[in-house]
Amino acid sequence: MGAVDRIEPDPRDAVKGAGLVIIATPVRSIATVLEQIGPALEEGTVVTDTGSTKSDVLRWAQRLLPGGVSFVGGHPMAGKETQGIQAAEAALFREKIYCVIPSVDAPERAIRTVLGLVETLGATAWFIDADEHDQYVAAISHVPLVASAALFAMARGSKAWNDLAPLASSGFRDTTRLASGDPDMAADIFATNRQAVVHWLDRFLAELQAFRDLVASESEVAEQDHDKRLTTAQLQREEFLVGRFDRGAPRAPIDLPSTSTSFVDLLVGGRMAQRFRDAQRILDSDARDRAEQMSRDVRRDIERNGNGSGNGRG
Amino acid sequence: MGAVDRIEPDPRDAVKGAGLVIIATPVRSIATVLEQIGPALEEGTVVTDTGSTKSDVLRWAQRLLPGGVSFVGGHPMAGKETQGIQAAEAALFREKIYCVIPSVDAPERAIRTVLGLVETLGATAWFIDADEHDQYVAAISHVPLVASAALFAMARGSKAWNDLAPLASSGFRDTTRLASGDPDMAADIFATNRQAVVHWLDRFLAELQAFRDLVASESEVAEQDHDKRLTTAQLQREEFLVGRFDRGAPRAPIDLPSTSTSFVDLLVGGRMAQRFRDAQRILDSDARDRAEQMSRDVRRDIERNGNGSGNGRG
Repeated sequence: MGAVDRIEPDPRDAVKGAGLVIIATPVRSIATVLEQIGPALEEGTVVTDTGSTKSDVLRWAQRLLPGGVSFVGGHPMAGKETQGIQAAEAALFREKIYCVIPSVDAPERAIRTVLGLVETLGATAWFIDADEHDQYVAAISHVPLVASAALFAMARGSKAWNDLAPLASSGFRDTTRLASGDPDMAADIFATNRQAVVHWLDRFLAELQAFRDLVASESEVAEQDHDKRLTTAQLQREEFLVGRFDRGAPRAPIDLPSTSTSFVDLLVGGRMAQRFRDAQRILDSDARDRAEQMSRDVRRDIERNGNGSGNGRG
Repeated sequence: MGAVDRIEPDPRDAVKGAGLVIIATPVRSIATVLEQIGPALEEGTVVTDTGSTKSDVLRWAQRLLPGGVSFVGGHPMAGKETQGIQAAEAALFREKIYCVIPSVDAPERAIRTVLGLVETLGATAWFIDADEHDQYVAAISHVPLVASAALFAMARGSKAWNDLAPLASSGFRDTTRLASGDPDMAADIFATNRQAVVHWLDRFLAELQAFRDLVASESEVAEQDHDKRLTTAQLQREEFLVGRFDRGAPRAPIDLPSTSTSFVDLLVGGRMAQRFRDAQRILDSDARDRAEQMSRDVRRDIERNGNGSGNGRG
């Protein structure tokens, strides 16, 4: 496919002279990779990742990377159930949300480098803090994964499977698609996001149980209730599909303050996300245009200078 | 789209002079339609439906259709979450399984008429009895529908929805797609397939609960267990996708006996499906070729004669 220029079996060799390092492995392997490459990284290198969960990753980066190396976590919201270089897709990230989670001490230059990467891929950067990220993806990625696997296992485990399977059509295929995902990736997700996954699974179980009880009841009230639930879900999903929900202000890197200190002050610490959104609300509607201009500038810098805006190692 | 030639607001007018009547409404409305059209149907007319469940439909047909009118139930396994004529798709049924459920007294001619319809659509006929059908679709259609709706409701009901929604990508979209289905259709499914849906929902809840407990546990044994479950699901779903499951013999209308009596004897009564499959197993591998030839013949007959092979009313 022409997607790979060079393969280095040893991560230490792979990162030699790199200005930007992207770690794209199952989450727990990121700790191993960080440990291996740490001593080999040069001053000023920016490290990012694409891991499914973020709190542990940011802790590992803090502990395992040397001073002078910056970590800015990343998570492109563009999953596929297929793996490996054969499943590569040039447009995979286009128009997708790309979560950006800077470490506490990441300088503006490092954040801009990762924003440049996001922009180059055609994705939209989305600032979020690590704990918030992990809670949210538990709901919209990890619980759907468990639901998919459990649904498939329920049908596959039946003695009637050979009679069921031929009747299974697109509905069953779509709802069980995530059961085809990489089990190693899933194991790492559960290990690094246990509490959030269990919390949302309990909510899902409660929803399901309530629905089950309504279906089991023959009363008219119960029928009206599950009918109302389904009608509401249908309407609300339509709103979701057309993007009609209150996004708040865009979590885009708009109106960057000129010094890295104030930018970091704004972005990180405690409930970074809320403060960032509050700050955004006061900005005018031209903000996104300016953000796009800035992103274009960053991209042009990258194209001119090689692997990172202002990285200086070109 | 050119898909509709004529619209008749009154079903009695719509069926006037028809050789084949196809009722495509939510399940419980089929009873109403059968009741309305019964007196207007001419001797020899074949009535079929596309309802999501079959046991009640066959009972209603038995009770509400006059003698001399035949009912052969149908259920094309090609669902979409969209409704109405705008969602029509010429190739919707192509290469899909089309369940065919003849009533006890349907003559061979009536069955052949519906088989001709199935073949014309490019689908594959699949003989099955009504109770078996309802059990199976509960597992592979109705529980996935409930799972989809519950998953969507779980996320949508959260106070954090506006922050969750932007992160929701293809995984969430696919696993919640069925939540966009027609609520009336769903209500009718639950009302006419209550026991089977509850049975499979309980199995699904048990699978989910087991998975939830494994994720909650921090023990290595638990991790090995959920890892094994996911690895197994991944492999088995791959087998499912490539169609590698024991289909038994094809449930196609192969080797039709020459008299309608023996054909009906073979097809219906008690556990029709099992007996039919047993019978199929002794047939040689040329059977499918002959079935296809027969289907082509039926189609040619339809093309020549209008709306039904041997229907005689052109």
